[in-house]
Amino acid sequence: MKAKNISSAVIKRLPRYYRYLGDLLKRNVERVSSMELSSLMSVTASQIRQDLNCFGGFGQQGYGYDVATLHSEIGTILGLDLGYTSIIVGAGHIGHALATHSTFRNRGFNLCAIFDIDPTVIGTEINGLTVKSMDEVEKYIKDNKTDIAVLALPRSVAPSVAEKLVSYGIRGLWNFSSCELSLPQSVPVENVHLSDSIMTLSYRIREIDN
Amino acid sequence: MKAKNISSAVIKRLPRYYRYLGDLLKRNVERVSSMELSSLMSVTASQIRQDLNCFGGFGQQGYGYDVATLHSEIGTILGLDLGYTSIIVGAGHIGHALATHSTFRNRGFNLCAIFDIDPTVIGTEINGLTVKSMDEVEKYIKDNKTDIAVLALPRSVAPSVAEKLVSYGIRGLWNFSSCELSLPQSVPVENVHLSDSIMTLSYRIREIDN
Repeated sequence: MKAKNISSAVIKRLPRYYRYLGDLLKRNVERVSSMELSSLMSVTASQIRQDLNCFGGFGQQGYGYDVATLHSEIGTILGLDLGYTSIIVGAGHIGHALATHSTFRNRGFNLCAIFDIDPTVIGTEINGLTVKSMDEVEKYIKDNKTDIAVLALPRSVAPSVAEKLVSYGIRGLWNFSSCELSLPQSVPVENVHLSDSIMTLSYRIREIDN
Repeated sequence: MKAKNISSAVIKRLPRYYRYLGDLLKRNVERVSSMELSSLMSVTASQIRQDLNCFGGFGQQGYGYDVATLHSEIGTILGLDLGYTSIIVGAGHIGHALATHSTFRNRGFNLCAIFDIDPTVIGTEINGLTVKSMDEVEKYIKDNKTDIAVLALPRSVAPSVAEKLVSYGIRGLWNFSSCELSLPQSVPVENVHLSDSIMTLSYRIREIDN
C-alpha cells in the first residue's frame, strides 16, 4: 500500500478513522459503509471515499469496508505496528498524567522511561517506571532505541532540551511545553497547545451568545 | 467589530495568532507586518491578511499591525474578556494536571471548582481548590454562573455526566474523555484527543523512514 503526497488534512483525519473503526470493532461491527462512517464522524461520505482512496482504497462498491481490515490497514499507515518507543521528559503534573494515559497502553507507543531534574521526584515510581535523572538521558537514548520524546517541560527550558534530545537520536517530539520548536525538518514535532483548544471553545460559546 | 460566517479553519487559527502576538508583546515588539507574522507562524502572509480581514482588518498597508491592539482585539473575538468561569469534573491525573495548568491562570478562564466521586480525593486540595463531591455539582452550577466544564473522566461515564452538566446549565465542554458526545448544537464541545496527536506524529516519523 503506497501513500504519497498525502495532504496534512487527510493525515489529521487518519487517527480519527482509526479511533472510530476501533469503536466499531469493539461493538463487533464487521462491515461499515462510507455513509455510516460519514454520519458517525460528521465528514461527508465522499470525503471518506476520497481520503481512503489516497491509500489505494479499501472498499468495494455497494459492499462497504471490512472494519477489521480497514482498522488494521490504517494502523499500519500510522506506523502503529512499528513498535515505536517513547520516553517522557518532565515528571510534573502533565508528565505524570501522560505516563498513566491510555495512549501508551492502547496505541503501541511503548513508554520506556521518564526523566526529571527534581531530586525529590527522581527515584519515585510512576505507573511502574522509576523516574530517572536527566543526567542519564543521553546515555539512555544512545543505549536504547528511542523514537519519541514527550516534552512535558516548562517552555523556558523546552527548546534547549529538545535540541539535545534530537542530537542524542530522538526522532520525533510530542510537545506539551506551549512553545514552538525550531528543529531539523527530519524531526517531526506534534505540538499540543491546550490553551488553543479552550480558546476555540470560548469563541464558540461567545458566538452562540451573539 | 463584526465576525459573521467565519470558517472553522480561521477560528482554529485565532488562538495561534493570539499566542504569537502575546509572545511578541512579552518581547516588547510594538509593530509586526503580515510578512513577519507569516514567517513566525508558517502561514502565508496573504492568509494572515485574509484571516484578519474576516474581522474587519486591523492593519494599514505598509505599516503593519499594532501588536498590543491586535492581541487585545483577537482576545475580544475569542471571548477572553468575558470572564467565563470553569469547573473541572474528575480530579484524576488529567484533571489534576489541568487544574495546575497555566491556561486557567493566563487565559482568563477562571477555574472555580473541582469535583470527583472518589471519597479519598474529595476534600483534598489542588492548586488552592478543595475537591468537592459530585453530589454537590448540580447545586454548585445552579447557584454559581458556570460556563465551562472540563471533562476529565473515564469515557464510560463521560456521556451521561456531560448530559447532566448541560441540564444544570453548563454552556460548553472541554472534553478529555476520549469519547464523542452527542449534545444540543447550542452547547459547543472541544474534544482533546491526545492519542490522535501522537498517532499523527507516528505517521510523520514513519513517512521520513520511507
